[in-house]
Parts: sequence; C-alpha cells; structure tokens
Amino acid sequence: MKALVYHGPGKKAWEEVPDPQIQLPTDVIVRVDTTTICGTDLHILKGDVPAVTEGRILGHEGVGTVTEIGPAVSTIEVGDRVLISCICSCGSCSYCHQGLYAHCLADEGASGIGWILGHLIDGTQAEMVRIPFADNSLYRLPEHVPDEAALLLSDIFPTGFEMGVQYGQVKPGVTVAVVGAGPVGLAVIATAGLYGAAQIVAIDLDENRLDLAKQVGATHCINSGTADWKQQVIALTDGYGVDVAVEAVGVPATFTMCTDLVRPGGHVANVGVHGTSVQLDLQNLWIQNITISMGLVNTTTLPMLLKLVAQGKLPATELVTHRFELDDITSAYETFGNAAETHALKVMMSR
Amino acid sequence: MKALVYHGPGKKAWEEVPDPQIQLPTDVIVRVDTTTICGTDLHILKGDVPAVTEGRILGHEGVGTVTEIGPAVSTIEVGDRVLISCICSCGSCSYCHQGLYAHCLADEGASGIGWILGHLIDGTQAEMVRIPFADNSLYRLPEHVPDEAALLLSDIFPTGFEMGVQYGQVKPGVTVAVVGAGPVGLAVIATAGLYGAAQIVAIDLDENRLDLAKQVGATHCINSGTADWKQQVIALTDGYGVDVAVEAVGVPATFTMCTDLVRPGGHVANVGVHGTSVQLDLQNLWIQNITISMGLVNTTTLPMLLKLVAQGKLPATELVTHRFELDDITSAYETFGNAAETHALKVMMSR
Amino acid sequence: MKALVYHGPGKKAWEEVPDPQIQLPTDVIVRVDTTTICGTDLHILKGDVPAVTEGRILGHEGVGTVTEIGPAVSTIEVGDRVLISCICSCGSCSYCHQGLYAHCLADEGASGIGWILGHLIDGTQAEMVRIPFADNSLYRLPEHVPDEAALLLSDIFPTGFEMGVQYGQVKPGVTVAVVGAGPVGLAVIATAGLYGAAQIVAIDLDENRLDLAKQVGATHCINSGTADWKQQVIALTDGYGVDVAVEAVGVPATFTMCTDLVRPGGHVANVGVHGTSVQLDLQNLWIQNITISMGLVNTTTLPMLLKLVAQGKLPATELVTHRFELDDITSAYETFGNAAETHALKVMMSR
Amino acid sequence: MKALVYHGPGKKAWEEVPDPQIQLPTDVIVRVDTTTICGTDLHILKGDVPAVTEGRILGHEGVGTVTEIGPAVSTIEVGDRVLISCICSCGSCSYCHQGLYAHCLADEGASGIGWILGHLIDGTQAEMVRIPFADNSLYRLPEHVPDEAALLLSDIFPTGFEMGVQYGQVKPGVTVAVVGAGPVGLAVIATAGLYGAAQIVAIDLDENRLDLAKQVGATHCINSGTADWKQQVIALTDGYGVDVAVEAVGVPATFTMCTDLVRPGGHVANVGVHGTSVQLDLQNLWIQNITISMGLVNTTTLPMLLKLVAQGKLPATELVTHRFELDDITSAYETFGNAAETHALKVMMSR
Repeated sequence: MKALVYHGPGKKAWEEVPDPQIQLPTDVIVRVDTTTICGTDLHILKGDVPAVTEGRILGHEGVGTVTEIGPAVSTIEVGDRVLISCICSCGSCSYCHQGLYAHCLADEGASGIGWILGHLIDGTQAEMVRIPFADNSLYRLPEHVPDEAALLLSDIFPTGFEMGVQYGQVKPGVTVAVVGAGPVGLAVIATAGLYGAAQIVAIDLDENRLDLAKQVGATHCINSGTADWKQQVIALTDGYGVDVAVEAVGVPATFTMCTDLVRPGGHVANVGVHGTSVQLDLQNLWIQNITISMGLVNTTTLPMLLKLVAQGKLPATELVTHRFELDDITSAYETFGNAAETHALKVMMSR
Repeated sequence: MKALVYHGPGKKAWEEVPDPQIQLPTDVIVRVDTTTICGTDLHILKGDVPAVTEGRILGHEGVGTVTEIGPAVSTIEVGDRVLISCICSCGSCSYCHQGLYAHCLADEGASGIGWILGHLIDGTQAEMVRIPFADNSLYRLPEHVPDEAALLLSDIFPTGFEMGVQYGQVKPGVTVAVVGAGPVGLAVIATAGLYGAAQIVAIDLDENRLDLAKQVGATHCINSGTADWKQQVIALTDGYGVDVAVEAVGVPATFTMCTDLVRPGGHVANVGVHGTSVQLDLQNLWIQNITISMGLVNTTTLPMLLKLVAQGKLPATELVTHRFELDDITSAYETFGNAAETHALKVMMSR
Repeated sequence: MKALVYHGPGKKAWEEVPDPQIQLPTDVIVRVDTTTICGTDLHILKGDVPAVTEGRILGHEGVGTVTEIGPAVSTIEVGDRVLISCICSCGSCSYCHQGLYAHCLADEGASGIGWILGHLIDGTQAEMVRIPFADNSLYRLPEHVPDEAALLLSDIFPTGFEMGVQYGQVKPGVTVAVVGAGPVGLAVIATAGLYGAAQIVAIDLDENRLDLAKQVGATHCINSGTADWKQQVIALTDGYGVDVAVEAVGVPATFTMCTDLVRPGGHVANVGVHGTSVQLDLQNLWIQNITISMGLVNTTTLPMLLKLVAQGKLPATELVTHRFELDDITSAYETFGNAAETHALKVMMSR
Repeated sequence: MKALVYHGPGKKAWEEVPDPQIQLPTDVIVRVDTTTICGTDLHILKGDVPAVTEGRILGHEGVGTVTEIGPAVSTIEVGDRVLISCICSCGSCSYCHQGLYAHCLADEGASGIGWILGHLIDGTQAEMVRIPFADNSLYRLPEHVPDEAALLLSDIFPTGFEMGVQYGQVKPGVTVAVVGAGPVGLAVIATAGLYGAAQIVAIDLDENRLDLAKQVGATHCINSGTADWKQQVIALTDGYGVDVAVEAVGVPATFTMCTDLVRPGGHVANVGVHGTSVQLDLQNLWIQNITISMGLVNTTTLPMLLKLVAQGKLPATELVTHRFELDDITSAYETFGNAAETHALKVMMSR
C-alpha cells in the first residue's frame, strides 16, 4: 500500500510500504477512507517528538472501513464503517477503568498505549492501518453521517470538549474565555454550550479565525492585538474575571493570559501542547481558589459527540477548509503547513 | 481592654485600647476566652502584609462568649459560647452563594471581606473583638466541647480539609502525600481519612513533626532530607505516583515536589501561602491529566468538622503544644516564633 | 391597599386590607408591579392546603419596587426593582448553607420558612407585600429586563430547572422525556438544553401544549393519548429507555409512566405536586440502577437563570398567554381556572 | 468435576458434571478454591427466579486459580490466583463505559450479561467454572490476601459500598441509618466510614446481628422491635431525620422505615432485593428534596476495596461465621438456610 512515511526531521514521503497485518487477536485492519493532518504532525516533522523514529507512518485521525478482524474482536465486523479514535486503549486496565484512556497501561510492544498511532506504531495517513484493541478504539458510524462530519471526532472535538469544557468545569450561566481560535479552540467554542455557557469569548490575533469562532458559537470575539483586550473581556463579567479560561495555543504568554483572566473560584483549562515551562505567579494566585487543569484527551465522550453530530447539533464540518485526494497528501501538508496564508484549519484527504 | 497591637514591622505591644463597639446591625461583640497565633501573624509582624496598618489588633482565630449583639443578628444570643471563623462573610452575595466565603463581596468599610480579622479590621488577640456578619461568621459551641478542642476549627482544620482534602479530590482508596507537616499539613493528614484515603504519606525534614503526623493519621512518614525520598514515596504506589499531592509549606521547592510526585490523572492541592512565583514544567505536565488547585479557606465545612470534634473523632487538641495566659501573649509569640527550638505547633492563650 | 384574600374553600375577594409593615429588621416592603397565579393557588382555593387559613392574601410570585427596608437589610435599597423568589430564606441556617432554601430553618413566627408567601404569611397578589429575609429572598432586576420576562423566574423556571433538569442529572447527549407540558413541564423543556440534552421529548394529551413545547425546545412531541406512545418514546433511544424521565403533572399514572420509560442507570425526576401515594414496582425496579428524586424548588439558580433571561437566552415570555390589570385579578383567576378552554398557561396581572 | 446442580424448586445435588470448556476467546477456566452461598441462591432454590433452569450450577462468588485461558485474554495468566466478580462484563459496550457493568450489553448466548454466573450460565459452586470476559471479570489477588478475606469482595462488599454508601451519597459528617444488619447491611456499615460518616446506626430485630454491627463499625445499634425505635434514631440527629437511610432487607415495611427516617435533602438507598411493590407516600415526600436510589452492584469499586482489604483496613473476614469443605456443600446450605438458629452470616466452602 501507499503511506506517508517519516524519514527524520524535515523529511517525509508518500511511498509504497508493506500492508499492515493483524498482530494481536484484538487487532483490526482498517482501509482508510478519509484522514487529516494535526498540528502535532508538523511538530513531529520538525523533529520535536523524538519518540517518533524514522520509517514511521504518521497520522492519528481517520474514518475507514474494516477489512479484517482479529479473533478476539467482538463488537466490530468486517465491512463496518468506523471512526478511529486518536487514543487506543484496552478498556480493562486500572487507568481505563477510571476513564483515563490516554494513560492506558496495556502492553502493545512497549509499556502503555494511549496515543500511539503515528507516534509509536504506524498511523492513519496511509491506505490501510492496523488498530490495536479495536473494540475500545473504533466506533461504528451511522450510515447517514458522512466522513467529513465524523473526521473531527477522532481528536479535535473530544479534545476541545474533554480538556476544555469538561476539565474547565463549564456549567450553566458561566462566561468562558477561549484563548486561541485554531481547530481545538474552535472545538471548545463549539461545545461549551453543551454545559450551558452563557458567554463564550473567543480571543485570537487572527480576524479570520475570530469570524469562524462566531459561526461555531462564540458570543463575543476579541482581538488580543488590541491594547485593551483584557479590559474588554473583564467588562463582560461582574468585573472579577471569567469563570473559565481555556488555553488553546501552547505557549507561556497565552497560559498567563488565562491565569490573568480567571476570577476567584474559577478554572483555567490548559488544552495547548507546551514545549517549555511557564512562570506561575503563586504569590498572587494561591489565594484565588482556582483550579488549573491539563491533559491529553481520553476520547471517552466520543460516542456522545458522535450522537450529536449524527443529529446535526455540532458544527463539525465548518472547520474543514481544504479537501484533497489521499494520493495528494503532500499538497495537503503544504497547505496546512502554511496556514497563515492559506487560512487552513483542517485539511481533509479522501480516497 | 487589652489587646496585641501591631506598630509596624517588628513591633507589637499588649496594651490598653478602647473596647470594640457594635458598628453595623449585623455585628456581635465577643469576649475572647481563648485565642492562638498563626504563621500569618509572624508574616505580618515582619511587614510582609502591607495591607495591615499600624495600630491594628492582630489575630483571626478564637473561642469566646457573646456580650452584645446588633439588632439584625438572628441566630446568636448574648451569653452564647462561640467559635470565631477566620473568615467573615455575609452569606447573601453571589460569592457566598457559591460557598466562596473567602471572596465575600459584602462591604465592611472596604470592598469585599473574607479574611479581615487581624488584617483589615481589629482581630482576636484581645480581650474583646467585634465580629461582622455574625450570623454567618460565628458558630455556637456545644457545652461539652472545650475551648482547646474547638480552637483549631477557626482556621487550621478547615484549611487543611477544604484546601487539601476536598480541593485535592481525595476519595476512598487513594494515596495522599502531604509535603510539610506543620499545623496545616497535620490538619490535612488528620482529615484525609474522612474521604477514605488508604495511604497518607507525611513528608517533612523534621522528625519531631513526622512523629506527630503518625499520631494524627499518617500511615507512612518519609524524611525529605534522605536522598531517595521520592523513590520511597513512589514505591508506595503502583509506580506511577500518588493520587493526591498536597503542598503545605509555601515555597517553590515543595510545590515542585508535588508536581513530581503526582500520577497521571491525579491532583496537586496547594495549601501553602506563597511569596514568589514558581516554575511550572508544562512541557512535561500538559499530558498528565492533572489538576492543580489553590485557595483561601472558606470555612464552609466548619459546622461539619465541629460535629466530628464534638464526637471525639478528630485529633484537634493534639496540635496544641504550649499554653499561656492571655496576658502573657508576648511569651507565647516568643515560643511560637522560635518553633525550631521549642517544637511549638500551636500555642494557646486563655483568659 | 387592595389584595386577593382567601376566605375559606371556594371563597376569595379582591378587597381593601391594611398595608403591610416592616416587622423584623431583615424585612422589606415591595410595591407589586406584576404578579401571576400558580396552580397551587387553585389547590388552596379548593381547600386542599389546610395550612392556609382564612384571611390570608394569596400569591408567591411577583416583580415589584422596594418602598421600605428594615434596618438590617444590606443589599437592597428603596427604589430597587426586584424579583420576588417564591422561597424566602435566611441564608445562614444549616439548611440554607446546603442550598436547601426550601427547608430554611429560620423562625418567622412559625418554625421554619421556605415557601411561606401566600401560604403562612400574606403573599404577592396584592398592591404591596412584606418580604422577610429580603437580602436572600429578593433579586435586583437589570433595567432592560421587562417584568414579563422576569416574572416566571419567581417559581416556574427555577422549579423546572432545579427539580427537573438538575435533580434529573441531565447531561450532554442524553434523551429527556417530560411527562406533562404545563408551565413547569415547559420550563423543564426550555432549560434541559443548559446541560446539553440531545433529545427532549414532550409528552402530553393536549396538542396545544405540545405545540408550545416545540417552540420552547422540545425536539419530539408525543401525544400520550395514542396507543403506542410508549413505543414511540423508546424508539427514540437505544431501545432501553430514556436517560431522564421528568414527572410534571402530579398524579400516580404519570409517575408510573416515568418509571416505565427510564432506562437502566437513568433518573426519574418528580416535579409534580402529589396528593396521593403511588405504587412503586420495586420488584422490577430494584435491579435497574435508577434514582428517583423529588422536592420543592430552592431558587438557588434564580440569579443564573436571570442572567440568561437578561441575555435573551431563555424563552421566558412565551409561557405568558393572558394579561390583566391587577385590579382585574378575579377575571384572571377565571381564565386560569378554566385552562382547558382558554388554553391559559400563565396569566399576568400588572398595575 | 463435581458441582452443586439445581434440579427445580426445592431440589439440588452435589454431583458429577462435565468439566467447563473455553467457549469464546475471552473466556478463562478457574479452579474454585473457595466459594460461598448468597441469599439469592436460597431464592433460586425456592423457585423464585424462573430464569434459572434445571441443570444449572449455582453460585456467583468465589476465589480460585486459573487453569486455562482463551486466546484473547490479555491480563490474566494460567496459575493466577483470582477473585471472581459476581458481575461479568465486557468493558467495551456503552453501559460498561458508563460503569454500569451490571447492565453490560455483551452477548453471551443471550442478550446482555452482568449477573449471569449461577443464573444464566453455570456458576461457582463447583470444582471449576468458566468465566466469560475474564479480563474485565476477574481480579488478580495479592499473595498475602487469604481466600477468606477476599471472598466477600465477589459481591457482598461491593454491593454494600456501591449501592448503599455511594448511591446513598454518604459524605463526611453525615448520619447513616442501615435498616437490616445481614451480610449486605453489615457491608454498608463497614464501608460507610470510607466517606466519613459521623454516625452509623444499625437497625435490626436480632441482637446478635446488632452486636456484629458494632464490631464492624456501627456507632449506634437500635432494635427495631422496641416501640420507640424511630424516636431513638431521630434523637441522634438535629430532629429532622438521618442524612442517608439504607434499606438492606427487601420488604415493603423496611423500605417505608427508610422514607420515614430520612431528613429533607437526604437520600434513601435501596440495597435489598424486592419481590413485591411498595407504597410510596408521594403526597408527603414530594416536598422533601430527597432521592431514592436502587440497583444491582457493578463491582467497579472491587479493585479499590481489594486494596483496602490487602491493607487490613476492612473487616472482611468478620462476616464469615462457618467454614466447610467444598465437598460438604450440602451441610453448608443447611447451616446457611437455617440462619435464625445457626446465626450464620456467610458460610465458606474451600477445597
């Protein structure tokens, strides 16, 4: 088959590789119908994720069709159209039992799984992919849900909802500020209403993204390039700050924006992937009765979100800005890698 | 009356001052029967808390007898023996309605109250004290509960329980590590069993305090002066870290000990009062699915804890190491200020 | 002033009575600008609520303007436009501290308050009314929120949201069935989306009410007069039943409809006021892992709901079907009492 | 092998049957080392559970050693000493994902599993037993935990803790009344302290059981044969009733005792297995803000409880009153069936 293979920092190729094989009785082989590129894939290509070694097929998102199942698979059948979770998990270890699929302890060659696709094992940017622990890692798609609507449920929507909205303890009537209106920030914005947020404030430097934020659910948009952005946000509250501040960028400055915006008793939910440490002003914050949360998505809410997508209640497809043939994945990478100019949010590749 | 008056950094005196008067209809005047000194009082005396101005009577903990009530006080009567909460709160503002008494918005001369005793208004290290919003700030004591057993409920026990155990989300079966076995750390240790903690690990440099930790509920004591203290703690878990790590010191090093000890999915509860910022290693922590909490006690659990003290179910008096006459409060300050030698934890002054 | 006075079963009159007076320092006198009639008022008039004695002024809902305040009132001022909660509460007793305002222990002539207006003390169907514990029982209205939009927050909307949606543990993605589309049932339907309900199924015999249900948020409407109503509901689920079934009528048959509809692991939230016992089929239900909740509204969510109404996010005014002058309250009673013909839901009387 | 086979109402025999075989790749065969008899087994023998057909091997509790594993079993190995959960569950269906193992949807010959051992498939009162979905239904035992201490974790302790303590929402400081001090009631009493119950009141007619209740954690014991039993219980509270009332018998009278005892805002947790309907006095209860919960144990807390047993923190073995050879199981049935005279609580049979 053909696949997008990582060949060390800066190098990748869409090339012929051996077809994946069932290795464990809980495995499934999926023919990839639609996949996408994540910001993380760009980080890997820069060489920022040393655990990814040369020869690895990238990608951890996708929709496909089951072509082969291992003998211990009980809920998935050949021919099923399935959504691939970015997190593989056994469902039976002590972490899975707590809903911490991201920290699944099951042994898949290495110790512990979770996010392994396109990371520790071959991923979804290929014509076929092997999915371990398929009973707990794949989700059957209702017929009338198109690939395009389901695709963002592999990672982006569960990440925004679980790490932003749920960890942020959004509840009816609150004001939520989302710093960063990229794909994951937009997913936070699109799902904050599921817990009744009264005001959803999108904060970004890019007016294009702020426009999209409004379309998917933001009640207010504030450009953080303006001098008084903070006063604008605080003015939307009782003067004490927002109930929930969500960090969806991954740099120290935006993290500090969140701890600056949150009110006493509020929550800072970090969703961004960080590469450096940040300074936490405990001398001011210790007295504020706040929580700061962070983490990798578990995708435990994926079935629920899928139900809402099936009912047309989540704006999933709005985030797909560009479409490509799977064979043309290198063009897709170029478009996605140059988002400042192309305004790409999510690019979609289909066979 | 006589009172302990702050006269600027390093200066204090037990001296004659005017008796307190009812100022608002919700006020009560209490004759102080027993009071104590908090680590915060030492900080104030060093000049570290600029909001405390010269002439202020210190102290925010105490047990006493009501001598006069304002016309709007409905649940407290003259002659009642009462426990004074370190937090004064109106019970009616939007923050109080959320249980955030520490951030009460009621106006008491300044904007917002909460911790004001011995801070923004005169405190409890005196023969008498005025208590604002008495209906929500005083608690009637059952006859058979001695002052000594109730005294630590003004601040220490609610702080340990609310900020350590509840914010730390302790639940049945977990392993809790408490870094710092001073009065508040010991209060965490003594109350962690209320949510069924299976292992309670006290960590401190002082063997004397570790001994006391064992008496009040620690299942394991580890001296953080040993080279392998961290390995010792981790060995008590499944190898992945503790479920809850409680910071009860207030310096960057102990905060980082906590983020180092916590397992994926766990909680860091900061209880310590910090004077500087700390470095938060988000590059490692973002993926760990942890929460970090912090805050000033609300004392919302004070009535419940009082019930347990009344039943002899909390080791309240064990933390009182020294007793003085109220008139001898300057000796008490000397003993408490020199804890390294005197091994003082809580000193008690009674009339 | 003039007021609607109860004179024993079947008898009432809009007549001259003495003006209300401040009795306790925490009282406030409110000029009633707008009020309404509750189904409970009809029950009282039938003689079904013996605690209501002859001479009592009825009514527990209303919007008004403060004309006088007691000396201990701290958050309300003369001239304030206020919403009157149907529940009066002190905010300081052990029940209020738990958010159980409905069971407030404060002494207001009798032991315990909660719902006393138009019940144990004179109510809001009058030109003026005395409100006890005003700091915790009145809510200042933003200028731009009209009486009409606020009025249903006195009772109907908090009752639907707290007793139906919150007690029913509605959460994102669930299917909620609401049995009974009267005012309170409609309030459940209108607020179930605040916790992300995916399907909101209105069930009633009256097509008129089902139409209104659709307008305020029902995704499906099912007439319980059809033979297969139950199959229709179950067909909307995975076949195992609804996640949450809300009883909003108050008779045994509708309660049993709810226990029949709920799936394993689901919740039955009783909102209706019942006059007789019901048969609970524990022989079938014990194994179902369900909860059954019930209770009188606390109105703790009133400020949050008010915020949403102020933002135009709740369909509050849609339920007001008829408008009258306050002086014409007897006509209003006639219209409301004859709802089958008049299709009245909420009638509004304004000065 | 030998097994205890049900031969229709009133008939059973310890007789030779074929050894169990691996049927599905997720199965495991366990050699039974220790088992016990549950009250439910007696019900089955009376013919009260028609789903149990002639020829069925009874029993759903046990400790054993793994002798064979299916090809899809990943966490259990031959030779492992294991605890058998009374609930078999796949861990991957939508109900398992919610922690509702009792309502697992996996197909095991019939539709849906959960409690199937000794019910829909052959059980543990045998020399060997087949366990479906072993990865999620068996728990490896630490070496130093004897069979005797682990045995009650198959059913009794998780049932008491999950259905009584957790569903009852026990929390620090509350008063819990447990009606019925049989094995499950005693398990409630023994685990209520894990959420900090301040008062645990055992209520039973049998002084022998009340004595044992005291040993395992009851703070007060009240004989319900006394005329003023209810007043005795209420006197332990603020006069308004208990916070949590647990029904652990399974008849209408004891259920009504619980709704009579509970205070406004409290919880009734039904643990008993009921054979008839009960009358629920909604005309009094609707206004009480209570919840009533009920259900079959999920055993999701089994690993946590096992950890506590391993640390000697739960009084597991105290409930074992009689010990037999496995071969002598018919004597064990006699002793258990005649508990009034033998004072049997749990009888243990070991090979």
